[in-house]
Amino acid sequence: MDFRSDNVAGVAPEILAAILEANQGTSSAYGNDALSQRLDSVLSDVFETRVKVFPVATGTAANALALSALAPPFGAIYCHSMSHIMNDECGAPEFFTGGAKLRPMEGALCKIAAEELDRALASEGNGDVHNMQPAAISISQTSERGTVYDADEIAAIGRVARRHRVGFHMDGTRFAYAIAASGAKPKDMTWKAGVDVLSLGATKNGALAAEAVVFFDEKKAAEFGYRRKRGGQLLSKGRFVSAQLLASFSDGLWLRLAATANTTARRLSRGLERLGVPLAFPNQANAVFAVLPKKTCAALREIGFEFYDVDSGDPVTVRLMASFSTKTEDVDRLIEAVGRLKSA
Amino acid sequence: MDFRSDNVAGVAPEILAAILEANQGTSSAYGNDALSQRLDSVLSDVFETRVKVFPVATGTAANALALSALAPPFGAIYCHSMSHIMNDECGAPEFFTGGAKLRPMEGALCKIAAEELDRALASEGNGDVHNMQPAAISISQTSERGTVYDADEIAAIGRVARRHRVGFHMDGTRFAYAIAASGAKPKDMTWKAGVDVLSLGATKNGALAAEAVVFFDEKKAAEFGYRRKRGGQLLSKGRFVSAQLLASFSDGLWLRLAATANTTARRLSRGLERLGVPLAFPNQANAVFAVLPKKTCAALREIGFEFYDVDSGDPVTVRLMASFSTKTEDVDRLIEAVGRLKSA
Amino acid sequence: MDFRSDNVAGVAPEILAAILEANQGTSSAYGNDALSQRLDSVLSDVFETRVKVFPVATGTAANALALSALAPPFGAIYCHSMSHIMNDECGAPEFFTGGAKLRPMEGALCKIAAEELDRALASEGNGDVHNMQPAAISISQTSERGTVYDADEIAAIGRVARRHRVGFHMDGTRFAYAIAASGAKPKDMTWKAGVDVLSLGATKNGALAAEAVVFFDEKKAAEFGYRRKRGGQLLSKGRFVSAQLLASFSDGLWLRLAATANTTARRLSRGLERLGVPLAFPNQANAVFAVLPKKTCAALREIGFEFYDVDSGDPVTVRLMASFSTKTEDVDRLIEAVGRLKSA
Amino acid sequence: MDFRSDNVAGVAPEILAAILEANQGTSSAYGNDALSQRLDSVLSDVFETRVKVFPVATGTAANALALSALAPPFGAIYCHSMSHIMNDECGAPEFFTGGAKLRPMEGALCKIAAEELDRALASEGNGDVHNMQPAAISISQTSERGTVYDADEIAAIGRVARRHRVGFHMDGTRFAYAIAASGAKPKDMTWKAGVDVLSLGATKNGALAAEAVVFFDEKKAAEFGYRRKRGGQLLSKGRFVSAQLLASFSDGLWLRLAATANTTARRLSRGLERLGVPLAFPNQANAVFAVLPKKTCAALREIGFEFYDVDSGDPVTVRLMASFSTKTEDVDRLIEAVGRLKSA
Repeated sequence: MDFRSDNVAGVAPEILAAILEANQGTSSAYGNDALSQRLDSVLSDVFETRVKVFPVATGTAANALALSALAPPFGAIYCHSMSHIMNDECGAPEFFTGGAKLRPMEGALCKIAAEELDRALASEGNGDVHNMQPAAISISQTSERGTVYDADEIAAIGRVARRHRVGFHMDGTRFAYAIAASGAKPKDMTWKAGVDVLSLGATKNGALAAEAVVFFDEKKAAEFGYRRKRGGQLLSKGRFVSAQLLASFSDGLWLRLAATANTTARRLSRGLERLGVPLAFPNQANAVFAVLPKKTCAALREIGFEFYDVDSGDPVTVRLMASFSTKTEDVDRLIEAVGRLKSA
Repeated sequence: MDFRSDNVAGVAPEILAAILEANQGTSSAYGNDALSQRLDSVLSDVFETRVKVFPVATGTAANALALSALAPPFGAIYCHSMSHIMNDECGAPEFFTGGAKLRPMEGALCKIAAEELDRALASEGNGDVHNMQPAAISISQTSERGTVYDADEIAAIGRVARRHRVGFHMDGTRFAYAIAASGAKPKDMTWKAGVDVLSLGATKNGALAAEAVVFFDEKKAAEFGYRRKRGGQLLSKGRFVSAQLLASFSDGLWLRLAATANTTARRLSRGLERLGVPLAFPNQANAVFAVLPKKTCAALREIGFEFYDVDSGDPVTVRLMASFSTKTEDVDRLIEAVGRLKSA
Repeated sequence: MDFRSDNVAGVAPEILAAILEANQGTSSAYGNDALSQRLDSVLSDVFETRVKVFPVATGTAANALALSALAPPFGAIYCHSMSHIMNDECGAPEFFTGGAKLRPMEGALCKIAAEELDRALASEGNGDVHNMQPAAISISQTSERGTVYDADEIAAIGRVARRHRVGFHMDGTRFAYAIAASGAKPKDMTWKAGVDVLSLGATKNGALAAEAVVFFDEKKAAEFGYRRKRGGQLLSKGRFVSAQLLASFSDGLWLRLAATANTTARRLSRGLERLGVPLAFPNQANAVFAVLPKKTCAALREIGFEFYDVDSGDPVTVRLMASFSTKTEDVDRLIEAVGRLKSA
Repeated sequence: MDFRSDNVAGVAPEILAAILEANQGTSSAYGNDALSQRLDSVLSDVFETRVKVFPVATGTAANALALSALAPPFGAIYCHSMSHIMNDECGAPEFFTGGAKLRPMEGALCKIAAEELDRALASEGNGDVHNMQPAAISISQTSERGTVYDADEIAAIGRVARRHRVGFHMDGTRFAYAIAASGAKPKDMTWKAGVDVLSLGATKNGALAAEAVVFFDEKKAAEFGYRRKRGGQLLSKGRFVSAQLLASFSDGLWLRLAATANTTARRLSRGLERLGVPLAFPNQANAVFAVLPKKTCAALREIGFEFYDVDSGDPVTVRLMASFSTKTEDVDRLIEAVGRLKSA
């Protein structure tokens, strides 16, 4: 009964089938195979505009490489203080950009507000050589706390990016969950709202290891092939990564998998709320942040539930995350156990 | 009839089966799963010493990260002028080391001779701040031209490395082919000969995407976990990469696959030699470098044979490479076609 | 009447004389001249311990290179949010370290408190590969707001550094002012308090262009010569930089110059206080941070006073900085003018 | 009697006078002073076109920063195998460019021939992501062996640069000697011949520490201010570096100093030739490369002559270099001593 993350799940059967099917005969290496050649077209359909797609092996690489396309080594990247690029990638963005600085922003619900960004960017020493130069904004969709930006919020940030002439990156390692939850169109959450580059994840949504860097502005992709290669992210048997991406994105599988996880998380959040368990963040996608006494947590772990603490208080906020494969009965067991422990 | 490379092949059935089998239930992410935890032990058995293993997604990353563990940013790395790290990784070694310099060495059969290295290292301005400091030697086993270092040659290089107090790296993206061809023990080709770090490939030998950085000197691995993470090479669903490595290395599959390819390449080289086709390099593993008139090459391509030119002369040297899945009948067809075109 | 900074001043006559005197005959380049060879010894006397000294041309380089000796590319460096390395060096620390991250700390009087550091370091994911690893603490003496750490405060930070096994760097671009103001011994402010490396400035205290990176722990200096050279900071006619450093540090000139500036600043701060002008920070060395109506500032500038605003409010905090060459009569004129404008 | 280098000399009196004169009152820091503001104009006169000038403290920094303006981290820079950037800067070009690769070229007289460059650039995998991408050509004027490119040779290289769309950098740490020796106009040796960026040295020609990065194509300078600052090369008391550059370049002093050195070197090379001493390279500027028995060298050193060996043979090639301050009588003494030792 593992609620630690959506990446503790295995591979969705449809994606595994696509891998097996890709294993026919020989094919050109390094992304010149027939499957990889279809990626631009399939994702252009998803986003209803012409996109340029670069598959990579990890979300860390997708983010760090995408940022390196937007920020020079002396650039500053504005992101939420709780964001993955700020805290969880051991400096990959700094490494791939050649030394750019991440400027942490605060913001409610783990989201950055456009007005705050506008203020921060306006106060920067733009053009002053002593200052790192504002180069990009990066937001996470869904955020590190499972919340979802709506299209208007993103568009407002996009306008700030344009006003200050900085790039706009979206860490979409869990983009599927945001689209499935909101029902928004992918285009309205991205390029129509001003996003230049999207790290589009599949791994945390049922793939084996497949992430895509999606450029909406082809000019910004000019150097990307070289950056990806020297970054060690050009896979030789590229067809197997592309097969995963095609399986995910060509017929809506990504949204079906994400919707399943979101529904499961919703069942869990509702159940906990009925028991009076406070949520630290509203459940908007596939994560539930519940506030529980440490004693309860210990008891839950004893009977086989797995999950992460996100702070060290008592009561503690824990993260309970659903994937496509999380079982409804495990959710019900968890709710039942919390209820029992509460009244004990 | 595709002789371009061993990476145009698909995935060996045994390795695909291991991936399927790994797809059970949930497991810890980022290399903390049960399969990943077995890697050190399985590869310690292969190398008959205690090793520390770090799986990564690409050979480029394996090499560049391994070198970053040996060379400081102001270090010089000695390698063959035809080596992969010198020519085919778009600067990944320079990137991951933070700016180290590759010093190209000449050497017959695409191998570096220990005496040449000794001379080169002795002539360096060791300790002179104007000079990049000798930091590592890197050799490829098999080499870019399909030749194989024997254990004595490696040991001689290892002694040079020790004498000049530099690290010793082996690019073993095709290590399997060298072991299968020579019958040498893995240990005699590596740590017993002074190798500190090995990039051990599986992808070019039947895996989907799985490479391992193997440290024989655990002290040199101290920072590697951080370097791998910031390098974007810590896979979240690590079990699937580890499953490939375990399937390859736990019961000798890697050697059976490589031996098959070597045998196929041998059949091809013998066939061509019988026809009087000159070989630019002796066939020692899974690659054949044949010298053919350009007209012959064009005719071969017309009837469906695929292969790469390695120079632009006429006659031209072409690379014909076998993998575990190359068919004997394709080899025979190729020999037959060359014979026919020759006598035409 | 220029109160903008201590670096708008020229060169002290004694230091200029030393440059002229150094201009005799030929001498070895790149720091192998007789003057440069005396630096270690002269500064070992100043610090009453054996030090290793590396002259460089700028404070930015001194700081960034010093930090590169303490922090690996995946390291985190703890510094005040208002520090120069954080805000005013266009990413030089990130560049020279190869991508380390600066972690901004808050703290009263522009100083970091040891307990805060202890808490911050204890809460870090030490050993977790997803986290940049705590590598160094950096404090500025004097601080960006002209305040002075006392020896006990530094020693408390030094103990935190030791406890968490991180390096301890001091940005001493204005170290002279702190020593002159406090009367403390250089050793008590540095190595005895746990400082590993000091960026020791002379430029802002009467030199032309001369900074020194001073290592108290020789082992940490092992690679520094290479880093300095590749960082473009090994001056060919090194004798002229060393001459400045020797003139400053061999007979107490640095303290006499600094004391002059401190006295001037004290005269100014007292004069302003007498007028009821609030100070944003206590005057402890050669800087005065006064809070003045914007109208007053405009009027002062109109009659020829120069100084910087440090915020954009009204009243605004302005920085008034004295150097060895600031004239007492200019101070008196400034006080008089403020008084007049106030009562107008 | 020191013939080791032109950087063992002191500072020319005119340049020292300019430093003293600059030491008046206060002035804006970081290159915003009145002297620094005149640099563009004075050097635009020298080059008879509009240039953008960035003073820095060392030749290493000038070269490495200039190259960082031309080459991306995945770029290749073509230079002579004996060039300073290749051998003597401990990897500064790799560091400042973020990992670009230097491609060594051979060429007679320590110069690169345009046709060789054309061939090398044509054979590169331009557009192939596995290859570092041709980004710049860098030549040294004068070369490391004291030879001088004529304007036609440079223009031919310039045409190759244009044809292959790569930048063109000139390491002009000794540019003065080439102009003084050839009588060519600065413009004909630089922008008219296709040079984009020049590292223009003054230190090796009588300055204390002053180098200038000169951009002929202003667009290529757009980011340079940031790169210089983060590279630790923006001097706070910039007026003193600018004063040196102005003294050198505003009234022809640079050419007078260089001509003096060239004449001295010519006297030396003629004297040695009369004695039958072979020269390894023709004397074209301020360096003489003489081939002498090791015994002779030892004897010369014993009686007080200083110079460097450039190889380790017997006879050995030694470098004898003149500066503006090298005395004619020392040259005559050297010739006399060689003659005496020869006939002994």
